[in-house]
Parts: sequence; C-alpha cells; structure tokens
Amino acid sequence: MALIVQKYGGTSVGSPERILNVARRVIETQAQGHRVVVVVSAMSGVTDNLIKLARDVSSAPCEREMDVLLATGEQTTIALTAMAIAGLGKKAISLTGAQAGIVTSETHTKAKISTIAPERVLEALAEDNIVVIAGFQGETADGSITTLGRGGSDLTAIAIAAAIQADLCQIFTDVDGVYTCDPRIVPSATKIQEISYDEMLEMASSGSKVMQSRSVEFAKKFGVIFEVRSSFNYNPGTIVKEETVSMEAVVVRGVSIEKNQAKVTITHVPDHPGRAARLFTTLASSGVIIDMIVQNVSVAGSTDISFTLSKDELPKAQAALAPVVLEVGASGLHAQDGIAKLSIVGIGMRSHSGVAAKLFESLGAGGINIQMISTSEIKTAVIIEESRIVEAANLVHEAFHLSKQGEH
Amino acid sequence: MALIVQKYGGTSVGSPERILNVARRVIETQAQGHRVVVVVSAMSGVTDNLIKLARDVSSAPCEREMDVLLATGEQTTIALTAMAIAGLGKKAISLTGAQAGIVTSETHTKAKISTIAPERVLEALAEDNIVVIAGFQGETADGSITTLGRGGSDLTAIAIAAAIQADLCQIFTDVDGVYTCDPRIVPSATKIQEISYDEMLEMASSGSKVMQSRSVEFAKKFGVIFEVRSSFNYNPGTIVKEETVSMEAVVVRGVSIEKNQAKVTITHVPDHPGRAARLFTTLASSGVIIDMIVQNVSVAGSTDISFTLSKDELPKAQAALAPVVLEVGASGLHAQDGIAKLSIVGIGMRSHSGVAAKLFESLGAGGINIQMISTSEIKTAVIIEESRIVEAANLVHEAFHLSKQGEH
Repeated sequence: MALIVQKYGGTSVGSPERILNVARRVIETQAQGHRVVVVVSAMSGVTDNLIKLARDVSSAPCEREMDVLLATGEQTTIALTAMAIAGLGKKAISLTGAQAGIVTSETHTKAKISTIAPERVLEALAEDNIVVIAGFQGETADGSITTLGRGGSDLTAIAIAAAIQADLCQIFTDVDGVYTCDPRIVPSATKIQEISYDEMLEMASSGSKVMQSRSVEFAKKFGVIFEVRSSFNYNPGTIVKEETVSMEAVVVRGVSIEKNQAKVTITHVPDHPGRAARLFTTLASSGVIIDMIVQNVSVAGSTDISFTLSKDELPKAQAALAPVVLEVGASGLHAQDGIAKLSIVGIGMRSHSGVAAKLFESLGAGGINIQMISTSEIKTAVIIEESRIVEAANLVHEAFHLSKQGEH
Repeated sequence: MALIVQKYGGTSVGSPERILNVARRVIETQAQGHRVVVVVSAMSGVTDNLIKLARDVSSAPCEREMDVLLATGEQTTIALTAMAIAGLGKKAISLTGAQAGIVTSETHTKAKISTIAPERVLEALAEDNIVVIAGFQGETADGSITTLGRGGSDLTAIAIAAAIQADLCQIFTDVDGVYTCDPRIVPSATKIQEISYDEMLEMASSGSKVMQSRSVEFAKKFGVIFEVRSSFNYNPGTIVKEETVSMEAVVVRGVSIEKNQAKVTITHVPDHPGRAARLFTTLASSGVIIDMIVQNVSVAGSTDISFTLSKDELPKAQAALAPVVLEVGASGLHAQDGIAKLSIVGIGMRSHSGVAAKLFESLGAGGINIQMISTSEIKTAVIIEESRIVEAANLVHEAFHLSKQGEH
C-alpha cells in the first residue's frame, strides 16, 4: 500500500462531468490498495472570471483581497470533488489550503510556502478518507488567506507530498508527459520515461512549459519523486526524480524550443567595471525579464553586449535602456525580433564531449545560421532565425537519435 | 462616534456596480464619524448556481461539502467589497465567518452560532479599517466550515453587533422597512418607525417576510437594536427594539397577511387523552410544518380538530394522516385550500379591550366570513377565503387607523 498525492489541473476539473471523471480515477487508485490525497485547481475559466469581477470594482485591486477572492476558485473545486467522490460511495473530506496546514509568507498573490503542518491531513487519511486539498493557496501565520502564484497548485501537491512523506506525487495535466521535443513541432518526438530534476528544470526554463521551475526545485530540494501524466488517458507519464547513473548514458534528454524571442545588442560598451551592471540593473528595475546574456572579449577597449528576451518585453526594454545607453558610453542599441531559441538538455553532456559540436554541425548541415550561443553544464542553447525553428528542431532531434530513445 | 454594523443582502451586492454603491454608502457612514463593520451576503444568483453545480456532481450532495461550497459565495463578496472600499481610498479588510471568530454547532447547512470571539474584528477596527465580514457562515470548534441556513446573514450581523457591543445594527434590504401592511395589498400602508421585538416576531411568523424569526429572537435575547432599511434609497427605516411605554399607546402595530394557506379538519376525534398528540406527532415526524391549531370544547364525547398549513404542504399532510385518522377513532379528514390568514399584531392589545371585536366587526361589515380564529397575547389571527384577502386587509387597516399612524 502506497501513499499517493494526485494533482488535477483546471482543465481536468473544468466541468461537473470532468470532476466526476477525476472522482472515478481517484477511487480506482484507492481500489488498487493505496491511500490517496488529491490536490485540485480552480475549474478552468473560473480564475479569469474572478479577476474580471475584481477589475470591475477596482482598477488596482488590493492584493490581500485578491487572494481572498481567488481562493474561492479552488474551494469550489474541493467541495465539488469531495461531493463527487462521496456520491460514488467513498469517504472523502475537503480541506482548504489553510485547513491543510499550509503556512506561507505574507507576499500576497505570490506567497512562498514556509511550513506545512499536515496533522489534519494525516488524521483524515487515518479515518479512511480520500483527502481533497485546495491547490494554490495557504494562509499566513496570522491567518490571512494567501495564494501561491503561477503553478501554485503543482507546488501545493509537491509540498504536501513532502510533508506527508508520500511515496509518489502524480501531476495530472492535459499532456501525456514530458517529450523529447514538442510533438507539434517534431512529429517523431517521444515521451521521456524518466528525467532528472536538473534536466526538467533546464527544459522548463528553456520553453517546455509542462511545469513551473519552482515546483521542480521544491521537489528536488525535498526529494519528492513525481510523475507528469494525462488525466484524459491511462498512459504512463514521465517520472521526475534524482538522477541515476543510467540516466547519464543518454547524452541529450530533449530539445526545447522557445519562439517569439527578441535580441538586443548594445554596441561598443566601454570595457570598464560597472557598465554591464548599470544596463542590467536598469532592465531589472523596469521589470523586464531577460533570458540569455552574451558578451565576448573586448576589442580595442569596448565590447558588444547582447541579451535575449520575450518579444513582448522588447518595447519596455528599449524604453528603459534608451537613456542609459549613452550614459554608459556605448555607441548604440540594436533590437531585433523574429528569432527563436533552441536548447538541448541532458545530464549526459557532463561526461560526453562533442555534444555542442554535433549540435552546430547538424544546424550547419541544414544551412541554418547560429546567431548566439550560450551554455550551461547540462544545456546548450542557440539563437536562430524563427522561421527556421521547425526545421532546426527536427534536424537536431534526429542528430541526437531522440526518436529512438523512447522505444526501448 | 458610534460603532455600527451594516448588513447588505444578495440583491444589494448583486453586481459590481451595486457593490461599489455599497462601498460608497459604507464610506459615507464612516465619514459621519462612525466605525463601521459590514456584513455581506453572496451576490444574488450565486448560491443557486453553486447548488446547481453540486447537483451536477451528486444527486445528494454531502452537507459538510455543501457548506464548503456555499461559503465561497460570501467569500467572493467580502473580497470584492473590501477591494471596492480600498479602491475608493479607505482602509478595509475582509474576514470570512471563521476569521471573524464565529463558532457554530456542527449541524451543517443550518448551524447555530455557539460563540463569537470578536478579537480580530476589534483589532481590525482599532487599526481604522472598515471590516467586511462574510454573512451566513462560521466554523465548528474543530475548524470545519459551516453555514447558518436561511436568514443566516441577518443573524451574522446581529450576532456580530452583540459580540462587539455595536450601538446599532442596520439591515439593508430591498424594502424600505416594516410596513403596517404589505403596500402591494394595502396602498395606504405606512412605514412603521419603531416596533418591539415581540411585535416583529409576530409579524414575521404571520407572513411579513422581512426577516427570519431567529434573527429577531437573537436580537431580543442580546438586546441588539436594529434598523431595517433600503440600500437603494436614503429613507429612514424601521427601528426594532425592546418595547417602550409609548409603544403601548398604539393598539395595533400592523396587519400581516399570508396567502396560499390550507386547512385540515379531523372530525369527531374522541375526547381521550393522547389522541391530538398522536395526530400532531405524526405530522411532525413527516416534516410537515403547521401553523394555527384550533380545537373547540367537545360535544357528546368527541370534537373536531383543525389546523392550517401552507398549501404546498397539504399533500404530505394528507398522506401522513390518512392511516392515523381511523386509528385515533376519528370519523374523517377534510382538507381545503384557497384560504388565507390575516393577523393584527400589537403590544397595545394587552392593555386595550375590544380589539378582537373591532377586527371581527370590520370583517363582518364587509360581509367577509371568518372560518377560524386564533389569538395570542399580542396577536389575533383569522382565516378567511383567499379571494377576499385584499378587501379584508384594507378594511382592517382602515378600521385600526393604520394609514394615519405613520404620519406623525
């Protein structure tokens, strides 16, 4: 008998029929001899409606009250899910985030989990209940309702799994698992059976939006093994866990791509300490989120500094940098969108040489020009023209034999 | 500076615009130098939608979970109301029933308030907040969410007013106050300025559905003075409080009418102890709610027993009684609908004679036959044909000079 935490996202609980499906699925898991804790999100669309209501009463809704408002979304789902399970004849009890003992920081709308006091969850399990917990929410030490921000329900599931020492945490979503590449881009992409936390993190930060990085980081920190799988079928998903020796045998785990990128180059930045800092502090204080930063060695006392960012952020970045470019003594700023990022990720890269070379070679053979390169220990990323991204992804996927990987 | 509790019902907070109106109204009250606590209901329609969702996932939704579900309705309103107030520049904080310290019995969907620990409300007031509390809800001593059943938000307002020793509790609704009779029936009906708790209770129990009896009883028990008034205008409402000597000068405070009634007569019930008990125990255990009971002295060892009830309850009552009628030795059961109840209410009746006579006289003069009579210390009720109820109400209202009462 295992103790399993199952998390179902907004699409999986998007209608009364789907909630009944979730209830059946949970009951099946229990029937296999397991104890089950279920974490649910708000029904899809509900959160957006609540945000709209808030904007109807205030142009800048108070964040404390926004949390009180948004928390009703998951509270609705836990009640309906527990009712559905009870209606199918099994004992169930719902708990809000606060009732489940999730204590958070006071940063409303994006609170961090500080501690979990899982006594009530454990008691309810001991009384043979299926325990249904509201994802995405908690309360501060002095009892104000908080929400955890984007990806908060995944985080709740993983944190609860850690707190109750669950054997497995299953993240049910609308995709089958983590793929070697987005199957809409690379039709031969295959599902990855097992992936390490670090690889999952690099995939997440380079465009594979299956899960937010913070949930993966939390799972890594507390050693929570989790599985990403679909609530709409019974296919096994992708297991995410600490790396094993056998994982290193695979050099590249997957290929991530991220479209709608832009790059900015600031030319002839004088090679003096503090100039780069001045540029990026300005960007940070304007709330611009940047991705890759590339700077080459300086020639004749100055250098070009380039960075990439989401295309949508470009106007904000240009406005922020315009006054600073001359101030730091640079000659100009060049911005360009229509580019995309392609990354290969794998812990096997650490012990295998020639991985970057193979990546460049495969793109070169396809006549695809590499505009920027950035590497980390288990990732190599390149910037190319956006119009060539599909072609590039298929070439690279093929070069690293990723289509075959899933067949074993 | 007074401490005022204001309660706004579902219609008063039925849209973002109306919530903004409530926010303005609350702020005006504060601007007059008062500290304000606001109790709000779910937006009109929301509770019905939630009940529909529950029925979509379970034919007999678990009551504990129904409370978790329904409580989201008021939680949504408190968040929006606090946001609206904050958006208009004043400090506001929302509290759920549980956060406001409302502890209830464990009778889900119709819990009773057992205690209130108002520290958090008082703290928030001390920090210059307008405190917005969710009506209709609380939590059990071990922390499960409960709801208070029909009229629960009024009860919350009055209970909070008692707990924080408020100077006044204002119940904002969609009517202007308590009238001498329903103005749709008696166009000359006038608004009552002051009414005693007991009169209000008798009015409530005899068809004037402004407030549930339990809230009035709670107010009486704890001496909470409250005002019933409209959220859609600035007219003063009706003050409900302990009776004063001057109240007795008015013999009849108002006329209540209740349509859609039915009467049941059980004929020739043998005059032996326990026969009436047998009949009414049967009705009670079938969940039939009855109103007036009339039994006259017996003649030749048997008597007729009559009672009235809502027309909708009639089939259930007939089915329940059918087997019992012969068992108690009665000769038969006669049921009739198409009747209505007219009641006159006033604490002045205690010290004034001839009130009943005047009532009967006024109906007699109009040629309206009285089918049943029932009296209490401050109420006289008669059953007449439903088709004559409008005429009867106007005649009685006129006979007791109620149209003039409000003019002073």
